[in-house]
Amino acid sequence: MSISPRYLTGDGAALKEFLDKFDVFLFDCDGVLWSGDHVFPGTVETLQMLRSKGKQVVFVTNNSTKSRADYKKKLENLGIPSSTEEIFSSSYSSAIYISRILQLPENKRKVFALGETGIEQELRSENVPFIGGTDQAFRRDVTPEDYKLIAAGDPSVLDPEVGVVLVGLDFHLNYLKLALAYHYIRRGAVFLATNIDSTLPNSGSFFPGAGSMSAPLIMMLGKEPVSLGKPNQAMMDAIEGKFKFDRSRACMVGDRCNTDIRFGQEGKLGGTLAVLTGVNTKEDFVDGPVKPLAYVDKLADLLGTS
Amino acid sequence: MSISPRYLTGDGAALKEFLDKFDVFLFDCDGVLWSGDHVFPGTVETLQMLRSKGKQVVFVTNNSTKSRADYKKKLENLGIPSSTEEIFSSSYSSAIYISRILQLPENKRKVFALGETGIEQELRSENVPFIGGTDQAFRRDVTPEDYKLIAAGDPSVLDPEVGVVLVGLDFHLNYLKLALAYHYIRRGAVFLATNIDSTLPNSGSFFPGAGSMSAPLIMMLGKEPVSLGKPNQAMMDAIEGKFKFDRSRACMVGDRCNTDIRFGQEGKLGGTLAVLTGVNTKEDFVDGPVKPLAYVDKLADLLGTS
Repeated sequence: MSISPRYLTGDGAALKEFLDKFDVFLFDCDGVLWSGDHVFPGTVETLQMLRSKGKQVVFVTNNSTKSRADYKKKLENLGIPSSTEEIFSSSYSSAIYISRILQLPENKRKVFALGETGIEQELRSENVPFIGGTDQAFRRDVTPEDYKLIAAGDPSVLDPEVGVVLVGLDFHLNYLKLALAYHYIRRGAVFLATNIDSTLPNSGSFFPGAGSMSAPLIMMLGKEPVSLGKPNQAMMDAIEGKFKFDRSRACMVGDRCNTDIRFGQEGKLGGTLAVLTGVNTKEDFVDGPVKPLAYVDKLADLLGTS
Repeated sequence: MSISPRYLTGDGAALKEFLDKFDVFLFDCDGVLWSGDHVFPGTVETLQMLRSKGKQVVFVTNNSTKSRADYKKKLENLGIPSSTEEIFSSSYSSAIYISRILQLPENKRKVFALGETGIEQELRSENVPFIGGTDQAFRRDVTPEDYKLIAAGDPSVLDPEVGVVLVGLDFHLNYLKLALAYHYIRRGAVFLATNIDSTLPNSGSFFPGAGSMSAPLIMMLGKEPVSLGKPNQAMMDAIEGKFKFDRSRACMVGDRCNTDIRFGQEGKLGGTLAVLTGVNTKEDFVDGPVKPLAYVDKLADLLGTS
C-alpha cells in the first residue's frame, strides 16, 4: 500500500510489461471509458487492442440506473461491442444479494426501491417482488393524511410485506419516498444501497450520486446501508462466479480510490490501474491512502506500447 | 454538565421553586407544545399560567417552513394568543444573518433557497433577493441539456448573482435542486442551513427534517453548512436583541438535547427544561452528554405546582 504508483503514460516498455501481467481487465465505465454521453477518444481502440491480445474485458459499473441489457445498448451506441455476460452493474449485484444471500421470511420478501428502471429490471430478472422504483404513484407531494397514515403504519401506505429498502440513484427522489424508506427501515426492513458514490460524473462535472440518495436516511437513522456496489466484494464474487479467473492475473481499472481501486485491492487482484479522467486526481492516487499499482493520464494511453 | 437533571413531574414544591427562578421561558414548539397539528392537552393552560405569573413567553422554532406571521396564525388556531414579536423561527434567523451579518459583494447577494414559503417571506422581510423556494420552475425533472448547461456554468441555469445557498425543510426537494445547490456552492456560494434537525416530529412519529435536506450536499461537498437554527447562537442573539432579558433568569424548554438543551446551555441561560413528548427520551436526558437542569414528562406537568 505504501509503494508509489507507477506512471505509465508515454513509457512504451513499462506499458507492455504491465499489460502482459494480466489476462483479465475489469473496467469501471463512467469516468474511465466515457463521461455522461461523451465517449473519451481512444476508448474503442483501447478495448479492441486488449481483445486482440486475448484479454478478457469486463465492465463493472456502480451506476444502478441501467440494467445489464441497458448497458449493453449504451456500449453498442458508443461503438463498443460487448455481451451482457461481460457487464456487472450495482443493480444486478443488489438483485443477486437480495435473492440469493439475504434470508428473508416468506412474508417479508418485497423490496421498496428508490431508483430507476435498471434496478427494476434486475430485480425482475431475479424474481424479487418490489414496489417504488419508477412507479408514478410515488411521484407526488406528501399530504397531511400521509403523515397520519405513515405514522400509524397503515398498510394503505406502508406495505407490510416490505422487508428491504434498496436505495440507488433516483432522479425522482422526493420527500414522500424518503419518508416511506425511513419508516420501512425503522419498522425492521434491511437497509441496502446499490452503491455509495456521493457523486455521478457527467459532462465533465459532477452531479448527485446514489450515495447522496442514502445520505438523508443515514442522517435520520444514524446507520449506514449495506452497499452492494464497488468496493463491496459481493460484486467481485459474482464476477468470479461467472468467469472463474485467476485473481492474480486480473487488473481493475478505475477513476476512484474509494470504490474502484479499493475494490481491486480488497478483491486481491494482481493489479489496479488508475486513470485521471474522472473523480480522483493524480495527488489523490499518489499521496492518498489508497494507491493503485499504476496510473495513466487517460485510458487511451494504454495504446502507446512500444 | 455532570449533574443529573431533576425530575419535577408531580413534585409541586420543586415545580414552584423552579418556576420562581425564571422571568423568561423560551419554548421549542414541535414536540413541546404540539406534534404536527395535534396540540398537547394542557398546552394552552400552561402558557396562560406562566403569563398570569408575569413570565415572558418566547416561541423559538427551527421549523423553517413557516414565517413568524404563519406561526402566529398557527398559534392562534390552536387557541394560543401570541404576538409576532414573541416568535423566532430559523427562517427569520437565517434572513437576519444573510442581510445583516454576511458581508456579500454587491453582485453576489442573491440566495438560492431550498425551502418553503416561510423562508421566502422572511427573506423578503429583510429585502434579500432570492431564487428557488416555492418557484414551480424548479419542480421538474433534470434533462440531458441541464447536465451540459450546469457543468458549463451557463447563466441560463446558474444565476451568476447567487452568493448563498440556504437549505431549509423543502417538501419539494428534488434532483435538480440538489444539483444546482451543489454547483452553486462549488462555485463559491456560502453554504447555509436554516437548521440541522435530521427529523421533523409529526403525528407522534418522525419525518425527514431540514438536516436531511442538507445531508446529500454535505456528503457530496465534504463540508458542513453554517446552521442558523438552534443551537446556533445567532438566534439567541436575535432574541436578546429584542427582549434585553437577564440570561440568568431565562429558561429554555425543549424536547431535543442537541438543539434545544444545547441552545440554552451555550447561551448561558439560567436553566433548561426537557419534556418527554418529542424526540429524545428520558434516558437521553438522564444518561446522555447534554443534560438539562430539569425534566418533566410533559409540559402540562408545570401546572401541578402546590
